[in-house]
Amino acid sequence: MASADQSKFPKVVIVGGGFGGMEVARKLANQPVEVVMLDKHNYHVFQPLLYQVATGSLESESIAFAIRKNFEGQKNFTFRIAEVSGVDLATNTLDTTIGDITYDYLVIATGSTTNFFGNKDIEHFAMPMKSIPEALNLRYLILQNLEEAVLAKTDEEREEYLNFVLVGAGPTGVELAGALAELRNHVLDKDYPELNKSHMQVYLVDFLPKVLGPFSDEASAAAKDFLVKMGVKVELNVKVESYDGKTIKFADGREIRTKNVIWSAGVMGVVPEGISKDNLERGNRIRTNDICVVAGTTNVFAIGDVAAMITDETPKGHPGVAQVAIQMGQNVGENIGNLVNSKPTKPFKYNDKGSLATVGRNKAVADLGKIKFQGFFAWLVWMFVHLISLLGFRNKVVVFVNWIINYVNYNGGTRLIIRRYEREAVPQPTGETVALPKSDG
Amino acid sequence: MASADQSKFPKVVIVGGGFGGMEVARKLANQPVEVVMLDKHNYHVFQPLLYQVATGSLESESIAFAIRKNFEGQKNFTFRIAEVSGVDLATNTLDTTIGDITYDYLVIATGSTTNFFGNKDIEHFAMPMKSIPEALNLRYLILQNLEEAVLAKTDEEREEYLNFVLVGAGPTGVELAGALAELRNHVLDKDYPELNKSHMQVYLVDFLPKVLGPFSDEASAAAKDFLVKMGVKVELNVKVESYDGKTIKFADGREIRTKNVIWSAGVMGVVPEGISKDNLERGNRIRTNDICVVAGTTNVFAIGDVAAMITDETPKGHPGVAQVAIQMGQNVGENIGNLVNSKPTKPFKYNDKGSLATVGRNKAVADLGKIKFQGFFAWLVWMFVHLISLLGFRNKVVVFVNWIINYVNYNGGTRLIIRRYEREAVPQPTGETVALPKSDG
Repeated sequence: MASADQSKFPKVVIVGGGFGGMEVARKLANQPVEVVMLDKHNYHVFQPLLYQVATGSLESESIAFAIRKNFEGQKNFTFRIAEVSGVDLATNTLDTTIGDITYDYLVIATGSTTNFFGNKDIEHFAMPMKSIPEALNLRYLILQNLEEAVLAKTDEEREEYLNFVLVGAGPTGVELAGALAELRNHVLDKDYPELNKSHMQVYLVDFLPKVLGPFSDEASAAAKDFLVKMGVKVELNVKVESYDGKTIKFADGREIRTKNVIWSAGVMGVVPEGISKDNLERGNRIRTNDICVVAGTTNVFAIGDVAAMITDETPKGHPGVAQVAIQMGQNVGENIGNLVNSKPTKPFKYNDKGSLATVGRNKAVADLGKIKFQGFFAWLVWMFVHLISLLGFRNKVVVFVNWIINYVNYNGGTRLIIRRYEREAVPQPTGETVALPKSDG
Repeated sequence: MASADQSKFPKVVIVGGGFGGMEVARKLANQPVEVVMLDKHNYHVFQPLLYQVATGSLESESIAFAIRKNFEGQKNFTFRIAEVSGVDLATNTLDTTIGDITYDYLVIATGSTTNFFGNKDIEHFAMPMKSIPEALNLRYLILQNLEEAVLAKTDEEREEYLNFVLVGAGPTGVELAGALAELRNHVLDKDYPELNKSHMQVYLVDFLPKVLGPFSDEASAAAKDFLVKMGVKVELNVKVESYDGKTIKFADGREIRTKNVIWSAGVMGVVPEGISKDNLERGNRIRTNDICVVAGTTNVFAIGDVAAMITDETPKGHPGVAQVAIQMGQNVGENIGNLVNSKPTKPFKYNDKGSLATVGRNKAVADLGKIKFQGFFAWLVWMFVHLISLLGFRNKVVVFVNWIINYVNYNGGTRLIIRRYEREAVPQPTGETVALPKSDG
């Protein structure tokens, strides 16, 4: 990073090109700073549509956008593919896969990863869906298991390939359940005339008593109703006990034979080494003050899913949603501008624009402040909001075309197994090193 | 395959869902036969556009189409993902990854794979581009090497990342050379402000004295002229001697330092075990008679790239192009229909519709019988022919949208590294087993 070190401007290093990190960089476009963004991928991903990639409704590339291309023409911006393993707060230095990188201001926008709550078996056998490679792995697993079901010799054998269990009834679980139910209801017997719709079951389970926990009761009830009518088996107040790759067991003694368990029951912040454990809140989130500054520092910010802004108004921090990350990114971008220009900073104030979740064709729920509505109109609003939020004109057009075609013929999408998914070998606790393929490589 | 075995209709097994195999199945839709198609992938790929996937102009899924979906509603059609390792001509049985499969009629439509002419080093270090996973590997390699070039500390180190050597000046090499030259000319300094256009070089080499060997002299000369004007270094009458992953050496003593060698210098048929070596022609192609029946059999057909129809009119067989595969597939489909209906078969007659190759924006060459033209109009014809030939309305629309956007802003496409490409470890000749990741997995 020789060029950056020679710069006479303060260097702002942003770790992560998600919703939050992108906003910080954008807000700093015309400020007298040098902006360096690091991400382990060279693209920004629009996570709210990952479930459509997993079910083959959208191609992976239509929900991602190259970070370099997004900042074309922003003269003070530099991008590097790099993973950050640690930070030395005393020397203002990051330890990364491309060497040490110093900073004047650091923005930790690393987001969150799937939380398996320490259960190694579930971590090994269940499928997470937080990144494009993970969504593609899930797609390939689903399609491979449909192909295996075709080959199965007994109903019993077929059962494990055609039972789908989604753990976690938040927006991700609800949307995926709806999409899988539509796959069963409208696609299965067309693509797989050998299979019977009644053999495929979609279960949505949660230990909480309602789906879409943080939504209004009206939205929650409507979503559950939509799901049940589509044939999803919604099981609430149920705790998962174990999963061994073949059978998922619940605390109440019930079991489901399945090779498809998708885990969206929790997330935790991705925190680089060097941040004190004392500074971490529940869910591995970094405690910050009301301008996103990490406790104990003056020049390190944390935003979005990895941040817990603990103030009198928000004693538990903000929800882990895109709008929080976006607005925190804007606030931090503006405040770094204020700091380098010796202006006063402005505290972050979250403007809750509401929540949307879709269940399927013509079915969505919307909580927009005091206005709550469900059904077709909510679904139109959901589509509109997601389309305009996608980065890039090409992606907007391609996603729109896909949605139109899917709507017209119920059977659009690209159900292709481009790279077969093979589960990694179980690490053997023998002390020998086992080379695992990277799930994300 | 219990259902198939119980059928009272003759069973036609088609190995391969490429241009030829698809036509055979389609032609048999209304015949009193059972059709079983086997392919190692669950999709048909439109190979002529692979080079645009490799250079990030198109998403991979827009040039592929799910085989199951393509045959929706064809009642006598069954599809299975399977690799065929061998055939027992005496018992009419295929040895496959999903078990033994018997046939009454067999159509070998396995196509061709890259021919490295026995050079193991080149096979290991050079990139082939015959499948979607290979095209994606190439895309990731190109993008990763641009990222590495950004990090390089010296010009010399940077050189190997930014030299691109394409071996083989057939349509694939020419089209890829054009696409890489456009990437350099229009995209490089926008996406990588750290890099200088003059540091990136694209070489197209062939041991023949002209590019596009089988085309007319006019087309060949025009294509070379287009390439040279776009800055491609065209090196003809040059033979590659070796490549070790860092330096490619030629028979005349010249060397180019490069980590990017793309090999499209030859193909060879993919022939299952069990076909007599005596029946193979040059390029590992199976000798057939004038209705594509494999010599020494009455119920086994070979079509497309894997077939060499040796007749008085075609002593060396037909060229390995899509039109030959398509027309052979139609002929074989019709003839199997004739055979089961006890009607006489019709000999295959190739209708050469001509050849098209594109070099870049507004630049293509067309040899349509006696009509030969080059430039903008040839480019329009090329686009039109490729668009209408793509399977599926969605794919046509998505590719068209991409092309329009690329045309307007010179910088469309999706240059995403979704899964990092890592070259496999070199197998060590120590007798120990080395687990290699599947290039195609």
